[in-house]
Amino acid sequence: MIQKHTRRMAPFTRPVAPMSRESAVRIIPLGGVEEIGRNMTVIEYDNDIVVIDAGLEFPIEETPGIDYIIPNTKYLEARKNKIRGLIISHGHLDHTGAIPYLLERIGSPTIYTTRLTKAMILKRQEEFPHSAKLYIEEIKSGDMVKLGQLKARFFDITHTIPDAIGAIIETPLGNVIYPGDFKIELDAKGKPIHLEQYTKLGRENNLVLLMESTNAEAPGFSIPEKTVHQNLEKIISEAKGRVIAATFSSLLERIIEIIKIAERHNRKVVIDGFSMKANVEIAQELGFFKAKHDIIIPADRINNYPPEKIIAICTGAQGEENAALMRIANRKHKHIKIQKDDTVILSSSIIPGNERSIQNLKDNLARQGARIIHYKVADVHASGHAYQEELKMMAKMLKPKFLIPIHGYYFMLKTNADLAETIGIPKENIVIPMNNGSIIEATKNKIHILRESAPANLVLVDGLGVGDVKEVVLRDRQMLAQDGIFVIITAIDSQTGKVKNSPDIISRGFIYLRESQELLRQTRYLIRKTVEEATGKMHPINTTYVKELLRDRIGKFLFQKTQRRPMVLPVLIEV
Amino acid sequence: MIQKHTRRMAPFTRPVAPMSRESAVRIIPLGGVEEIGRNMTVIEYDNDIVVIDAGLEFPIEETPGIDYIIPNTKYLEARKNKIRGLIISHGHLDHTGAIPYLLERIGSPTIYTTRLTKAMILKRQEEFPHSAKLYIEEIKSGDMVKLGQLKARFFDITHTIPDAIGAIIETPLGNVIYPGDFKIELDAKGKPIHLEQYTKLGRENNLVLLMESTNAEAPGFSIPEKTVHQNLEKIISEAKGRVIAATFSSLLERIIEIIKIAERHNRKVVIDGFSMKANVEIAQELGFFKAKHDIIIPADRINNYPPEKIIAICTGAQGEENAALMRIANRKHKHIKIQKDDTVILSSSIIPGNERSIQNLKDNLARQGARIIHYKVADVHASGHAYQEELKMMAKMLKPKFLIPIHGYYFMLKTNADLAETIGIPKENIVIPMNNGSIIEATKNKIHILRESAPANLVLVDGLGVGDVKEVVLRDRQMLAQDGIFVIITAIDSQTGKVKNSPDIISRGFIYLRESQELLRQTRYLIRKTVEEATGKMHPINTTYVKELLRDRIGKFLFQKTQRRPMVLPVLIEV
Repeated sequence: MIQKHTRRMAPFTRPVAPMSRESAVRIIPLGGVEEIGRNMTVIEYDNDIVVIDAGLEFPIEETPGIDYIIPNTKYLEARKNKIRGLIISHGHLDHTGAIPYLLERIGSPTIYTTRLTKAMILKRQEEFPHSAKLYIEEIKSGDMVKLGQLKARFFDITHTIPDAIGAIIETPLGNVIYPGDFKIELDAKGKPIHLEQYTKLGRENNLVLLMESTNAEAPGFSIPEKTVHQNLEKIISEAKGRVIAATFSSLLERIIEIIKIAERHNRKVVIDGFSMKANVEIAQELGFFKAKHDIIIPADRINNYPPEKIIAICTGAQGEENAALMRIANRKHKHIKIQKDDTVILSSSIIPGNERSIQNLKDNLARQGARIIHYKVADVHASGHAYQEELKMMAKMLKPKFLIPIHGYYFMLKTNADLAETIGIPKENIVIPMNNGSIIEATKNKIHILRESAPANLVLVDGLGVGDVKEVVLRDRQMLAQDGIFVIITAIDSQTGKVKNSPDIISRGFIYLRESQELLRQTRYLIRKTVEEATGKMHPINTTYVKELLRDRIGKFLFQKTQRRPMVLPVLIEV
Repeated sequence: MIQKHTRRMAPFTRPVAPMSRESAVRIIPLGGVEEIGRNMTVIEYDNDIVVIDAGLEFPIEETPGIDYIIPNTKYLEARKNKIRGLIISHGHLDHTGAIPYLLERIGSPTIYTTRLTKAMILKRQEEFPHSAKLYIEEIKSGDMVKLGQLKARFFDITHTIPDAIGAIIETPLGNVIYPGDFKIELDAKGKPIHLEQYTKLGRENNLVLLMESTNAEAPGFSIPEKTVHQNLEKIISEAKGRVIAATFSSLLERIIEIIKIAERHNRKVVIDGFSMKANVEIAQELGFFKAKHDIIIPADRINNYPPEKIIAICTGAQGEENAALMRIANRKHKHIKIQKDDTVILSSSIIPGNERSIQNLKDNLARQGARIIHYKVADVHASGHAYQEELKMMAKMLKPKFLIPIHGYYFMLKTNADLAETIGIPKENIVIPMNNGSIIEATKNKIHILRESAPANLVLVDGLGVGDVKEVVLRDRQMLAQDGIFVIITAIDSQTGKVKNSPDIISRGFIYLRESQELLRQTRYLIRKTVEEATGKMHPINTTYVKELLRDRIGKFLFQKTQRRPMVLPVLIEV
């Protein structure tokens, strides 16, 4: 499994040239173009840099044991004094999650964001008591802030969380527009929400559109969130027993809607999941909605009400270990046990990599008799990201000269670029970032990607360390996971070179030692033989040589006997 | 990540009762009902047992470093003398792959299977020179063999590999029917292929139908393989340059069809992939098809022909490390490099768990300019497993009294059971196996699941060991993959209890030691302090106690400093 995804580990980088002499806007995605997650985009003009978003990505197969992957900010660290601000488009972790780890590194610039997003960032910051204080300036749609020679303006965006905004970075060459994550929904009359805003913006001098690509492969239009709300209401109104609705804690709009549905159908609401509770509290505090008095009850009171009077909204729809629904499925939840007539709604899609956990979740819930409704049997989830027709619509409305697809794996970006061509944007006006760190320069008439790129090695967060988990550590973890470790401790008489006592062997993850006494006996014999043959004519003892020899011989011997290759670590102690 | 999927590790088992005194057929899925893979089903009546299929499953998240998971055959090992034969339904590894590992354990019964399947089993057996010789009796559709009091008959099945058969086990109570993996295709006139055979079989006394559930959640009908062939031909005929078609080496029907398309369009064929080549050779040797002379060329001659004269058929559509297409994508293939106008067809679906590898595959191919066609943009793949309407059709044609869904995760089995209810099979006549090892007994009028179950602990193949990777070893591998290992070697003067020299520290997968000198210094200090405070008043030294103390203190110290929890292994050496 080692280096399965070779692209990730050691991207090729050259020293980055200074800005072109000719006046140009530089656009650098530092994250988010080789993955879904850790979004961060740099917009640079002359002496000014504006950064948009600072997200995290969850660990991947090649990064066992780490907590998060965050954007590599070396390019920015070398240009701290040029950074005029960090704009955050909305409160999801793939746009905010890296703030506690990298803000100080890039000189703690002022953060510009909306009210709800600000509250969510500050809430999370409480988990990092040693981080420096954040300076957050609250902005809203329609506002303008000066950032050096650049100006930023903000506009409304429909996503799955309230208070999401897009950003317009005004440069002397024209606007760079970053809608961030968006979808296009229709109002009651069938008109796209925010239509006037987009068409008005389309009349400006729009140089570059940075277009998300998450759903660039999905034809047609995304399911409207309203449809999901209607379906949830129908399912809840018809449910005979309790309803347990699981979704992402970040899908705040849907969570609020489920609470409203509960009110309409006289059901009490249990909210279970730390982050979900926190998000609902913040939204209430800031007045984004107001739950009826007493509608939300604590989990330990769930059994005080008849089943048809209960909705539990909880985390864990992705089968996350220890999340509420997973604990319910595994019969480990303190207050909620699956009972007859329970309806479980999995109001989320499947994030790639979680298939097996979700399968296990569904299996265990079904074994206990729950009725399960998931997105494949009813529209109980909608993506917050534009499908092909919405992407095309946005590009047509905003009429940019150049288009750069961002936010997605390369193939998604490529598909998004192909889409843009179909609506008449010339091929040469579209640039696909090759990797994180790709540097794209746009002048008034031309856009191209530089041969040089910004540093982009993976930056990993593991416990208290940021960036300090090196490739070698990850490779070791992967090897250890395959065949374990085999430590040999041998005491040698430094005078005679003889092995004193029997060598100690410690092994983990290799074989079950208690049932392998004969193998251990043979191994100890071979250790003694190997050491004494080597040290016999050796004064003083060259321990490095002897250790190498042991590693090699014992490794081969164990492979021959077991076809496994544990990591062999010899320790020699001269006494 | 430990024990994320709790179901897997230690299933609850009771001692299994002898067969009911009342005459009953016992049906026990030993594998394939908590997963897709390792299919094996036991049919037992009185003193006779017939086993059907012996497949493997590929490793899952909870089994790092192992090769395969195979069915637990303890139940059969205790009843070897009753086993009258092993029937293999077709040549896919999820039905044949465990044969080399478990056949001797169950007393090396005669294998009954078709000509092609036999050849594929024998071919694979060559990789196991130390296994005992296999006794394979060739059968074909329509044949009957006596197996003790039981009789087995065979019927034609449409799947994605030639020579697939279903089995009818005649018992004194009626037939147990095992179609195995199947789909229902229509002939040129729109009539289901094998319709007469199924309807004729439907007139017999069919007690139990064992129905696969792989696609029980998929509504409608599966895409006909013929549609895939037509689409492939269209894409190939229109391709300007080379075509590289990647698929499973086991989809032999499709591979043969692509070779025929190549013949029709005057393209030479390169077949790349060890198992794919072997399968094509076997199929040709047995006369399942005959490629035109010289149409198949070796990979090293691919560049002797113009691009429009080439089709490469290769493995690696799942992004498998080292498979042909993956090497092409990663620029590591000796003979095939992506060039302009190459069309890559991914003629396969995505096996859950492979999403990221396939994404990486597509990204790297797209970066090099290949045009990529996959199953989401065109019907270039069809499943070999029946969708809902086909499952219903089969059950209606065969008219069994009882139905047992097999082959799939619990939720799939449950969905399949619900389907069966919709076509009029009474709920009480349907039994869903709860786990592998569930024992189901059917009499003439009743079917039920016993409280006792057959042993079902995971049996893992890891190198030369079969079944010897214990839970503790897997748990250790998972822990090691998270935060690595930290070995402390301390020499103590057995007289004074003082630490001699500086303690040795070996660590892998935890932190990058070269950059952690200060942490190591502090750790060494704490080791010395911990040991000497403990041994100061201790004669003789209680090494177990001191080691426990070290493990605890150093573990806590490292966690406090890094928020990581490496496995701490203290070694004390008294000198």
